[in-house]
Amino acid sequence: MEFSAEQIAQFLRGEIEGNPQEKVNNISRIEEGGKGTLSFLANLKYEKYLYSTTASIVLVNKSLALSQPVTSTLIRVDDAYQAFASLLNLVQGTVPRKKGIDPGSFIAESASVGKDCYVGMFAFIGENVKIGDSVCIYPQVYVGDNVSIGDNTILYPGVKIYHDCQLGKNCIIHSSTVIGSDGFGFAPGEETFQKIPQLGNVIIEDDVEIGSNVSIDRATIGSTILHKGTKLDNLIQIAHNVEVGENTVIVAQAGIAGSTKIGRNVMIGAQAGIIGHIILADKVKIGAQAGVANSVKQEGVILLGAPAFDIRDAKKSMILFRRLPQMYDQINKLEKEIELLKNQLTDKG
Amino acid sequence: MEFSAEQIAQFLRGEIEGNPQEKVNNISRIEEGGKGTLSFLANLKYEKYLYSTTASIVLVNKSLALSQPVTSTLIRVDDAYQAFASLLNLVQGTVPRKKGIDPGSFIAESASVGKDCYVGMFAFIGENVKIGDSVCIYPQVYVGDNVSIGDNTILYPGVKIYHDCQLGKNCIIHSSTVIGSDGFGFAPGEETFQKIPQLGNVIIEDDVEIGSNVSIDRATIGSTILHKGTKLDNLIQIAHNVEVGENTVIVAQAGIAGSTKIGRNVMIGAQAGIIGHIILADKVKIGAQAGVANSVKQEGVILLGAPAFDIRDAKKSMILFRRLPQMYDQINKLEKEIELLKNQLTDKG
Amino acid sequence: MEFSAEQIAQFLRGEIEGNPQEKVNNISRIEEGGKGTLSFLANLKYEKYLYSTTASIVLVNKSLALSQPVTSTLIRVDDAYQAFASLLNLVQGTVPRKKGIDPGSFIAESASVGKDCYVGMFAFIGENVKIGDSVCIYPQVYVGDNVSIGDNTILYPGVKIYHDCQLGKNCIIHSSTVIGSDGFGFAPGEETFQKIPQLGNVIIEDDVEIGSNVSIDRATIGSTILHKGTKLDNLIQIAHNVEVGENTVIVAQAGIAGSTKIGRNVMIGAQAGIIGHIILADKVKIGAQAGVANSVKQEGVILLGAPAFDIRDAKKSMILFRRLPQMYDQINKLEKEIELLKNQLTDKG
Repeated sequence: MEFSAEQIAQFLRGEIEGNPQEKVNNISRIEEGGKGTLSFLANLKYEKYLYSTTASIVLVNKSLALSQPVTSTLIRVDDAYQAFASLLNLVQGTVPRKKGIDPGSFIAESASVGKDCYVGMFAFIGENVKIGDSVCIYPQVYVGDNVSIGDNTILYPGVKIYHDCQLGKNCIIHSSTVIGSDGFGFAPGEETFQKIPQLGNVIIEDDVEIGSNVSIDRATIGSTILHKGTKLDNLIQIAHNVEVGENTVIVAQAGIAGSTKIGRNVMIGAQAGIIGHIILADKVKIGAQAGVANSVKQEGVILLGAPAFDIRDAKKSMILFRRLPQMYDQINKLEKEIELLKNQLTDKG
Repeated sequence: MEFSAEQIAQFLRGEIEGNPQEKVNNISRIEEGGKGTLSFLANLKYEKYLYSTTASIVLVNKSLALSQPVTSTLIRVDDAYQAFASLLNLVQGTVPRKKGIDPGSFIAESASVGKDCYVGMFAFIGENVKIGDSVCIYPQVYVGDNVSIGDNTILYPGVKIYHDCQLGKNCIIHSSTVIGSDGFGFAPGEETFQKIPQLGNVIIEDDVEIGSNVSIDRATIGSTILHKGTKLDNLIQIAHNVEVGENTVIVAQAGIAGSTKIGRNVMIGAQAGIIGHIILADKVKIGAQAGVANSVKQEGVILLGAPAFDIRDAKKSMILFRRLPQMYDQINKLEKEIELLKNQLTDKG
Repeated sequence: MEFSAEQIAQFLRGEIEGNPQEKVNNISRIEEGGKGTLSFLANLKYEKYLYSTTASIVLVNKSLALSQPVTSTLIRVDDAYQAFASLLNLVQGTVPRKKGIDPGSFIAESASVGKDCYVGMFAFIGENVKIGDSVCIYPQVYVGDNVSIGDNTILYPGVKIYHDCQLGKNCIIHSSTVIGSDGFGFAPGEETFQKIPQLGNVIIEDDVEIGSNVSIDRATIGSTILHKGTKLDNLIQIAHNVEVGENTVIVAQAGIAGSTKIGRNVMIGAQAGIIGHIILADKVKIGAQAGVANSVKQEGVILLGAPAFDIRDAKKSMILFRRLPQMYDQINKLEKEIELLKNQLTDKG
């Protein structure tokens, strides 16, 4: 399919700078470009490519001031990244969704499956499972007994959902992710450990996306909860009885220890670790590789470092960490000079 | 099923404070409570909830001194956490275990399967595999050729066991965990790398529990070994030829590099990393996010930081890290003052 | 099968010290040894075992100077590690490779499969997939629509390859690894996040090995690329649009954020994190647990720490970090002494 700058500008309510008849039939990254492709510029780190790209059309922010001439036709919009996302969604909407119950899948007789669902080959759906409408369950997925899954949710190949867990609508869960495995609970004995049975479940509300190879443990009692709109990247650890607030974003390889409560619209950077039994207030931001060992009760605080503290202070300490050898030399020099001064004073005394 | 405080106290050998006829039919977390539920208090961080909980019965330690009146019936025991664990085990014991060989599984003719086993749909059991009694193999598990699995072991959906590995009795392995993948061994050439075939295996002894998405590599030659009673959380890396001692506990996202030997009753915190070819003595404790680069030969040492050192010293250094800007200012101020003193002395000279 | 020292020396072009008729029928680690086994010594950390091992034959470097008498027959070669690797390859070559299309697998009619392939039980091969010759696809693997796989590539049980990805020849991918899951891209709205569809793919060139439980996300547009000869350990995160240069080695639990370009022959240590949208030059080395926040433009640089800087400086700062309490005491002592000196001078003034 081919679209003109005029058609795209109309769809995005943008303004054209250049040829309204310019045509595109594909998308590209601005540094790669190519005739007949549409690209975008949002991160100004990539601005230099705007002046050399061969993309036929480029979406840019209304606020962008050009510093050089541009050969592409520009479409100016309020937010080029969001506008581009809308177009990508339009493109993806044209990809037909998988449908139909594959006879090579297994669905327990006591399970119910809604309309327009896909259940792929080698997928396993256990007893009393309730699946909504338009749900996509790819091959080799496991859905344990008594699980419920809301409308439009997608489970990619190999996802494993343990018994009794609940998934909302419009969720996306990527391959090899495990929902509802046992929490890590053991009562220490003299030398050995006694397993604490994990009798709770996991509740995932609507509009949650979870990457691949993520582990979300079931609660000991009660529920581990991901609230509405939460987005998790890959290889993340969510321990038992954790609660993650609405629209919170957690980046790859981060881990949250048991019973911790994360607020709404929190951002947790890659490889960060949050200790158990604490609380993070709404809108808190935790930097990559940080280690958070105490509750953060003030909204919107930004922390960095391990152990984590206020980002401005942490950055100062990190810069001085690099200067430690100089500081050490300074101190030793000062000691010698003081010794000298003391001797001089004694001599004079 | 319903139980009275009297019945529970008898089972746990505890002492009742309150109404011996108080009835419960469910369990709860103390901060949630609810009439008809039994809860417990072990971590004193949660003591405040004891005075407001609506749980009908609460297990507490004998040593607990009440600071306010309590409405729940209390049962005092030596160790409330262990007592609660016993009750949870009792509850879980009432859940019937899966049984039977599903005709939709594949079991090689040369494999042997013991009594009362479960082999779920889409599970694959290779040549010469030996499976003990009462083993639970959930759907989509892979058991490679020549693997042996001891009695009562549970493999959750999607576990992958490569050929020649050995698993003991009473083990639990959670979904998407991989046992016996190739160790990361390459002989560096001029520019490229030559793969070192990984011809060993993995041996997992009795009573080991392993979380989800864990990777345990087979040995180059010989065996990677997890000794009896070891407990591993999720997303952990165990490299080739590692040996983990009895009853050692490793928390989520930690990693142990090749050929390292970990002692008995060691505890390794979340996201910690242990370098290859070293030894950790028995009962050593490694803090979360620590990086251990040298052998630890003294039993019971507690280390923190990256690189890790004694926890008391590490904590002091971590506190001073936050004060680096002040220290830096102090040093600069001292330099100026010394300069001034020197000038004063010269003037006087 | 049994081999004599003479036969092995001939194969490796090595020189015998000892009995040319010494026979072996197995391999061992030098610290374990055993009569009839062949071992090797490459890492001098293990030299002490050379003088006590019971291995019948040991491969050693030509350059090795013995400090004690040895009972094993030695074979001296240029590089004992590589020579041993050659022998292991010889042993592994005798293990027959799996072959044949299992009728319990699913292969779409539009897919093509080359000669001498293995497609195991419960494996799923989607529409228009193109599979080369001698490819091994183990049970429970998922290969999405339009994927292509080069000759001799091995996909271990449970590997998931999303639609449209391309894999080269002679690749090895271990269990539970996910190739082509959605990149973590969301356009932030007022409070919620809008998903950016991930329409690109993943390209994996020839001779790439990837460990277990690795996540490699597809590009938003264009491709996430692992170039020829790249080796990845377990539990690694490769975000969307990352490009990894030829023969680069990445150790377990490391993560590379979106759109970063890694050069050739780079080494990235375990648990290290590389921020998005940067470049690492060829032959750069990043230490374990490091955090790289800026581009590294100079070839061959070695970095350590979080944030990472030159390894020599980082090691100095790390040593002084441990001495912070002493430095703090020194500064406070200096302050007091200066105060004293000032007073003395004032007194004298």
